[in-house]
Amino acid sequence: MKLLRYGNPGQEKPGVLDDEGRIRDAFAITDDFDPAFFAQGGLQRLQSLDIATLPLVEGDPRIGACIARPGNFIAVGLNYVQHAIETNAPIPEEPILFNKAPSCISGPNDRVLLPRTSTKADWEVEIALVIGKRAHYVSEDNALDHVAGYCVCNDVSERAFQLERGGQWVKGKMAPTFGPLGPWLVTPDELGDVQNLPLWLELNGERIQNSSTSDMIFPIRKLVSYISQFVVLEAGDVITTGTPPGVGLGMKPERYLNPGDVMKLSVEGLGVQEQTVARWDDQ
Amino acid sequence: MKLLRYGNPGQEKPGVLDDEGRIRDAFAITDDFDPAFFAQGGLQRLQSLDIATLPLVEGDPRIGACIARPGNFIAVGLNYVQHAIETNAPIPEEPILFNKAPSCISGPNDRVLLPRTSTKADWEVEIALVIGKRAHYVSEDNALDHVAGYCVCNDVSERAFQLERGGQWVKGKMAPTFGPLGPWLVTPDELGDVQNLPLWLELNGERIQNSSTSDMIFPIRKLVSYISQFVVLEAGDVITTGTPPGVGLGMKPERYLNPGDVMKLSVEGLGVQEQTVARWDDQ
Repeated sequence: MKLLRYGNPGQEKPGVLDDEGRIRDAFAITDDFDPAFFAQGGLQRLQSLDIATLPLVEGDPRIGACIARPGNFIAVGLNYVQHAIETNAPIPEEPILFNKAPSCISGPNDRVLLPRTSTKADWEVEIALVIGKRAHYVSEDNALDHVAGYCVCNDVSERAFQLERGGQWVKGKMAPTFGPLGPWLVTPDELGDVQNLPLWLELNGERIQNSSTSDMIFPIRKLVSYISQFVVLEAGDVITTGTPPGVGLGMKPERYLNPGDVMKLSVEGLGVQEQTVARWDDQ
Repeated sequence: MKLLRYGNPGQEKPGVLDDEGRIRDAFAITDDFDPAFFAQGGLQRLQSLDIATLPLVEGDPRIGACIARPGNFIAVGLNYVQHAIETNAPIPEEPILFNKAPSCISGPNDRVLLPRTSTKADWEVEIALVIGKRAHYVSEDNALDHVAGYCVCNDVSERAFQLERGGQWVKGKMAPTFGPLGPWLVTPDELGDVQNLPLWLELNGERIQNSSTSDMIFPIRKLVSYISQFVVLEAGDVITTGTPPGVGLGMKPERYLNPGDVMKLSVEGLGVQEQTVARWDDQ
């Protein structure tokens, strides 16, 4: 099943994509795809329905982030060997974790807004997952039972804020619009092997990231199990799992986002995102 | 005004402390002291009341965290010179930021539970603040207008997870019970100069942290303004502002928490916390 949210920012409604790619209104099932929806078995209720009985949504609405505000948004760093190498970082022996801000999340095709003093904004195509039920001290064998679904994430990153302003990475990871999620949250049954999905990103039509989730250092089952040793993961939480090589920080010379640039990115089976870059004060 | 939440974990109700130190039931004003309460002017509604008209709460209930689940929980590292020195870290030129997990928050007198593989759990008395209204690109002059109030925070930290497991600090900062907040959220009008408050922590009766908020490298108005350059701070968000010297990591030899240890800590005017340490699996 492909879950999505449509409508104006802050007023999104829940919907489901049907077999013909049309949006069906899921408001009869839930107000929103929020943490309570996942915690209270909403996904199972939705999957027990005949989608064709849900009303069709007219027109061509904006698509919002595929889930409502999560309780936590955790990210994994340097999870592809060639990305670690391109950024001159050692290959991690354990997953590297950091946080994005829940307030950074935006729709898959919304503009990405450069912070006022930004000089080194960069792209990162990733596969993200949404936790379906509480996970704490879960084993690798059981980890994927705690995943509600997967979506595309652009882990937009300001490298000067991240690496040149003292201390931890989070400064460059949490600006508003730095977390496009969607267009769809795809349930695992639709996806096949989650560790064998092509993913790519094009900047102004040029494909500059082109890899596969098979290249991850730590697979998703390992990440969920590992993270659950350090924190209680709750229904609705988001984990984005790291980017393959091809980011601007790794280019020689380095290359960063400018107003008017267009990023197009996808993970196979999860849909396509497309974002135009603008300045915060030009929105 | 002193806001608090009382009752069993997950079922806390909002209350206010009256002049005689008794709890008054604030349920007529709000379901909870949650982000919506602050965003929708709940604090102003509460402050316009005569507290003596609110019903007295009988008995001696457990005190929960002084606010409900925030949308974000941001922490400042190494914000006291002598703490940076004791941990062999350079004195920061800009504030160092990291995240705690909203799911780590617990009541001020709840037990602190050691994660299963914990060997180096440590204490950090801090003054935390709660954002009262959205803050993005705010100036230092206006920063404190965005603060709803202040509370004590024990930024409990697992140093092996934080420093020896690769990458970023957050691994040691987000375990459940690692964020006791309260007992009260104290509004700024009751507090005097927030940069001149003694704060201390006692481990098993021995005072091992003893400092003043006047020793901060970056004062709170600077922190709020600075953080708002990188992220949208929303009503209900929590920022904890760093710890003074006296943590276990800084002792020679290093000293860490064991089951049965008792931490007692306070910031003047914000009340006292007391936590007994136990193992996660012994709860």
